[in-house]
Amino acid sequence: MTRKIRRLVVIGVGLIGGSLARALRKAGQVDEIVGCGRGKANLEEAVALGVIDRYTHEIGDAVDDADLVFLAVPLGAMRDAFAAMRDRLPADAIVTDGGSAKGSVVEDCRAAAPQLLARFVPGHPIAGTENSGVAASFAELYHNRRVILTPLETNSPESVQRIREMWHACGADVTEMTVGHHDEVLAATSHLPHMLAFGLVDMLARMKENDEIFRYAAGGFRDFTRIASSNPVMWRDICIANRQALGPMLSAFAGELELLAMRIGDADGDALLEIFERAKAARDRYVDGLK
Amino acid sequence: MTRKIRRLVVIGVGLIGGSLARALRKAGQVDEIVGCGRGKANLEEAVALGVIDRYTHEIGDAVDDADLVFLAVPLGAMRDAFAAMRDRLPADAIVTDGGSAKGSVVEDCRAAAPQLLARFVPGHPIAGTENSGVAASFAELYHNRRVILTPLETNSPESVQRIREMWHACGADVTEMTVGHHDEVLAATSHLPHMLAFGLVDMLARMKENDEIFRYAAGGFRDFTRIASSNPVMWRDICIANRQALGPMLSAFAGELELLAMRIGDADGDALLEIFERAKAARDRYVDGLK
Repeated sequence: MTRKIRRLVVIGVGLIGGSLARALRKAGQVDEIVGCGRGKANLEEAVALGVIDRYTHEIGDAVDDADLVFLAVPLGAMRDAFAAMRDRLPADAIVTDGGSAKGSVVEDCRAAAPQLLARFVPGHPIAGTENSGVAASFAELYHNRRVILTPLETNSPESVQRIREMWHACGADVTEMTVGHHDEVLAATSHLPHMLAFGLVDMLARMKENDEIFRYAAGGFRDFTRIASSNPVMWRDICIANRQALGPMLSAFAGELELLAMRIGDADGDALLEIFERAKAARDRYVDGLK
Repeated sequence: MTRKIRRLVVIGVGLIGGSLARALRKAGQVDEIVGCGRGKANLEEAVALGVIDRYTHEIGDAVDDADLVFLAVPLGAMRDAFAAMRDRLPADAIVTDGGSAKGSVVEDCRAAAPQLLARFVPGHPIAGTENSGVAASFAELYHNRRVILTPLETNSPESVQRIREMWHACGADVTEMTVGHHDEVLAATSHLPHMLAFGLVDMLARMKENDEIFRYAAGGFRDFTRIASSNPVMWRDICIANRQALGPMLSAFAGELELLAMRIGDADGDALLEIFERAKAARDRYVDGLK
């Protein structure tokens, strides 16, 4: 039986934070929602849209008397957020977050507010759209999407259970893994592809006659490079936050591409066919798995 | 004023060849269409669908009395096709093709049938779908799509003009560039992205617990890796055919990724932001250009 959230504090009322607020409100799981952020216009809009009930710009004031805190600020702002709530968070309140890397957020908590480690349950909803800001948020964003929780040894089973229930109320599919494993899996499936898309478009943009090159880019190019239109600041933060997993993986992939370039240079058809067939089989299996 | 094609011979009646036949038939630009290929079932289907009027399995027989020949066989089969038509093609017939690389096809013509070089106008329609075979063909495939012709110095202006008119009749937007430039542009915008998608999916598929990795792949991953579901045999042929342009470009990109991995390892936020912002601006400009 889910215990209703008395006061939800959403720090960072954008697509991720706003959608959680809307989903919990829609599910009737929350009494009051307090927003916190820097942009007055966005917070005013959040109130006007009914996403939050009221707001403050001060994290300390926001978490005062909170029941549950959702941290949806950029990864680069996590440490300051933990520091700001350290001495103000009620003793029975729980904190969770939505950051795309988990090791760095845990480290930020440990560095800025070690006494909160027992009540901080790190999480990552695998959801998003290309839009941002509270205007882009919607209650169904997490419906049938995966949320990965990476509970800490210091977390009480009740805290973890409460965060699970919060996400279940949003229609999400909740699983657990370790912090390190999460960061490896996300480096492979999300951060690395983003690096390839950003890197490819950047290289082409620096080529002579790059306008002509883009003019002849065929249909597949548009899909392939869609993620290169993602928010550069957010991705800078993700790269730095997850650099321990992402750096070596990107470097390993660069090595594989060098090998592939050699095989192409050698016209080694058998080796190329083996790689392409294995990739196609895995990709087709993955898409079948989504159905 | 377009001169109607008396007898069009389509060698390789699949998506590309079949769609050209359908488009020219629909435009009323062709009297008779002869198909040629190895698969009897596909050719029977092509007749049943009205895509071709009749067929033969012998290229020599097919081009006998041809007016215009469209070569839509895999890149690895081009040389044999030129050899087979060498002594049978009427003196006034023109040949063009649809290969994704142009240097290798010109080299195949030069090696197997040098006397045809004057009448071979290389071409590349930038169009396709993930399906293949004549059943997947449709008359509108080339509508508003780009076709690149790479005329040879030996081509007569009349031959080139005739191929331009053929593609215009299909609704395509025809441009010209040199063989070498075509191969560079396509390596950058099509062949290189395919290598990244195949390479990434292959690397992830070889990781431990790869099923789990794919399970957590987020939305962008599906788009990014779509082209890894492409035909492995076709891509082996393209890689080998365009290895002179693709090999060095892939190797250069691998070097850029190594550099990017270093910047991530160094947490060099300014350098990362610069790359991501440049890429996003170029990608957004490219998509705006498509509108």
